[in-house]
Amino acid sequence: MSTPIDTQRMEKIVSLCKRRGFIFQSSEIYGGLNGAWDYGPLGVELKRNLKNYWWRVMVHERDDVVGMDGAILTHPAVLKASGHVEGFSDPMIDCRTCKAHLRADQLVEKKGVKQCPNCGSKDLTEARQFNLMFETHVGAAAEESSVAYLRPETAQSIFVQFKNILEVSRKKLPFGIAQIGKAFRNEINPRNFTFRSREFEQMEVEYFCRPEQGMELLEYWKEERLKFYENIGISRERLNVKTVSDKERAFYSRGTYDIEYDFPFGPQELEGIAYRTAYDLKQHQDASGKSLEYFDDEKKERFIPHVVEPSAGVDRTILALICDAFAEDQAPDDKGKMESRIVLRLHPRIAPIKCAVFPLLKNKERLVAKAKEIVDLLRPHMFVFYDESGAIGRRYRRQDEIGTPFGVTVDFETLGEKDSKARDTVTLRERDSMKQERVGISDLLQLLSMRIA
Amino acid sequence: MSTPIDTQRMEKIVSLCKRRGFIFQSSEIYGGLNGAWDYGPLGVELKRNLKNYWWRVMVHERDDVVGMDGAILTHPAVLKASGHVEGFSDPMIDCRTCKAHLRADQLVEKKGVKQCPNCGSKDLTEARQFNLMFETHVGAAAEESSVAYLRPETAQSIFVQFKNILEVSRKKLPFGIAQIGKAFRNEINPRNFTFRSREFEQMEVEYFCRPEQGMELLEYWKEERLKFYENIGISRERLNVKTVSDKERAFYSRGTYDIEYDFPFGPQELEGIAYRTAYDLKQHQDASGKSLEYFDDEKKERFIPHVVEPSAGVDRTILALICDAFAEDQAPDDKGKMESRIVLRLHPRIAPIKCAVFPLLKNKERLVAKAKEIVDLLRPHMFVFYDESGAIGRRYRRQDEIGTPFGVTVDFETLGEKDSKARDTVTLRERDSMKQERVGISDLLQLLSMRIA
Repeated sequence: MSTPIDTQRMEKIVSLCKRRGFIFQSSEIYGGLNGAWDYGPLGVELKRNLKNYWWRVMVHERDDVVGMDGAILTHPAVLKASGHVEGFSDPMIDCRTCKAHLRADQLVEKKGVKQCPNCGSKDLTEARQFNLMFETHVGAAAEESSVAYLRPETAQSIFVQFKNILEVSRKKLPFGIAQIGKAFRNEINPRNFTFRSREFEQMEVEYFCRPEQGMELLEYWKEERLKFYENIGISRERLNVKTVSDKERAFYSRGTYDIEYDFPFGPQELEGIAYRTAYDLKQHQDASGKSLEYFDDEKKERFIPHVVEPSAGVDRTILALICDAFAEDQAPDDKGKMESRIVLRLHPRIAPIKCAVFPLLKNKERLVAKAKEIVDLLRPHMFVFYDESGAIGRRYRRQDEIGTPFGVTVDFETLGEKDSKARDTVTLRERDSMKQERVGISDLLQLLSMRIA
Repeated sequence: MSTPIDTQRMEKIVSLCKRRGFIFQSSEIYGGLNGAWDYGPLGVELKRNLKNYWWRVMVHERDDVVGMDGAILTHPAVLKASGHVEGFSDPMIDCRTCKAHLRADQLVEKKGVKQCPNCGSKDLTEARQFNLMFETHVGAAAEESSVAYLRPETAQSIFVQFKNILEVSRKKLPFGIAQIGKAFRNEINPRNFTFRSREFEQMEVEYFCRPEQGMELLEYWKEERLKFYENIGISRERLNVKTVSDKERAFYSRGTYDIEYDFPFGPQELEGIAYRTAYDLKQHQDASGKSLEYFDDEKKERFIPHVVEPSAGVDRTILALICDAFAEDQAPDDKGKMESRIVLRLHPRIAPIKCAVFPLLKNKERLVAKAKEIVDLLRPHMFVFYDESGAIGRRYRRQDEIGTPFGVTVDFETLGEKDSKARDTVTLRERDSMKQERVGISDLLQLLSMRIA
């Protein structure tokens, strides 16, 4: 994890994201809203694939995890009990020269003196605490309206519904509650594209257990989650597991790992796996006066469960997927001349479009009709894209750039005009190797389904 | 649509939703947050199935619609241009006697005099406008922080990204942009369970077209959307299409239909289908100074497209699904004695759990092992649930109540102990008819997949 910061590569990635409709600046035509992003037609598909795969692996394929989906608007009592109202803040420093607001850890140190990273001034204020929660008012009349917060993490929604979910799901320890949803933090300096945003999405499991199981489950989840990133195609060598030191860890945690990805702007956290002990449930039990205990039928014991939390960022993982997949290589154009191409080597499981279907020429009715038949054949099973415009090489290149793993071309051989044995076969092209094979239309669905699963 | 208000039925539904983990009050252990709801383990699955089916039908199966996913935090300029800052308000009246805040249309009229619906007082204030948008502050320092709003509808996210998406998707008119996401309204009186909430989710398409296509497309989308509700299993006779009158319609709309569902608390809107003309794009073009025009290649014409918007409420549709599916009938218990049962007759496509798998007895190792084999067989293809506890009749009843359409029971016949011909067959039970058939395990996946699709 020692790659130097690669600004040029990051610029190319940001440009591709905008140009091809993965990610746009939010409220862009009005100058943008700092720290908020919109996902375009391809971005939303990539995000859906990631979230659906996470849900499949973390909820549907397990007997010991159930899901939930909590509200964003949160009662202040929840966030008082969790410690967020009091302590969810960053130390902020102002530069008296250029008036910038800076997070204390973003200052530049020169010759032992802290300086403003914008203007180099040493004339800085003392650090003061800046609470990162967004506040709003709920209720009909200003004078009596009550404060509510946009949740700063999805985790608290789970803790406060622990008892309800325990009751309805009839689960026994250890078991988990999973959630995917938005959270909001008023970051002092949003930066690194979508990496540090003010609005973001989390995928979390709170995995409840007996106290003596905590440390072992921390290790278990670290391994599970590493496997997850490999299964969505992120290179193992760009992932790093950082053991968070006693000093950096939250005071209630007995162990925390960060799974980091080596972004072009440096290694940064994708997911935290934290053994949070019984802290959160205990806080809510004390503050609400409602029992959040678990009764162990076999041991006839009543206690507050401990919890291990694998908590991943959706937007961060999307960015890691794109960064990891982004490549430039050489490919032949329509005349066989080599040209440089951009290719997103996304895992087929995650790629927005699974297969593109091309008639060789758009003005040949029979080619077009056959291509559309293939679209209809594949569409109930995967997201396919039909494209008839431009030279075939250009169409391949457009799909390479957005990570479509397979392309199917319908040509005159498909129609059996040259050789009746080739009738109803098509060219299947693979994005990374650019290898082409001749495949029967009747085999296509099974072949693609297998490679995409 | 003349069913009287059925309070008792609604109470049963609310109770089921809580008892079985569909919907909980948000922040419940702290007394709840009015107008915000959390979805439990079954609610989240129901919601996922609804949203995924909508996306499949509205985006993936169409060549003329692409998706997006915009931020909730919205630049104030967006909502100034759209008219929300100025005009997105409800007339509010206070009761001077009981201090209630009332929406003007909720007053009760007796002998021609308006009275407070809570206490019957006639001592009411004049109506004043109450803006329904939630406001927050974005930025590092209070003195210069800027206001942002939680979007009151998802539609505006689409309009402000129209140009970007037009460019990246290379679509020609008519085409649509789809989005599913949360929106927020500070309702004066949230009520009718989840129906009128302060935080809710929308599923919308903005379908852009040439001006002369608008009226025809309004009719087209009305029919498409009615089909959708029938395809998720909502009874046609409880749906009503209301033509919104000139007076009730937004001033810029040339035609609007409301699709209403006959809830136990009366007929209420599930979806609005509005022909919004070029109003929104024109407002944003004027306010931002950025061209939001479309260039028609063939006619060599440049103009602002018109738009037809089918806009559905996710939470409202979930509530309609549950209300429509809720039934009480008679079923035999384990001894054949008839008892009353609650059954959710959800369409298999939408049901949270598709199939439950039961070993007849939990203390017979071979039954349990076989049942778990079947779980492993089905799980990659559908959400299945394994249950071994209690009498088989009770286990059926639990699944009936949560709408699981199919149950598979592994018994001694499955093991081939009585009759070797029956080996590897199971009992497949259908929820609504309670009919049981004997099915080979090897046929199970295909049979279920067909009935669920």
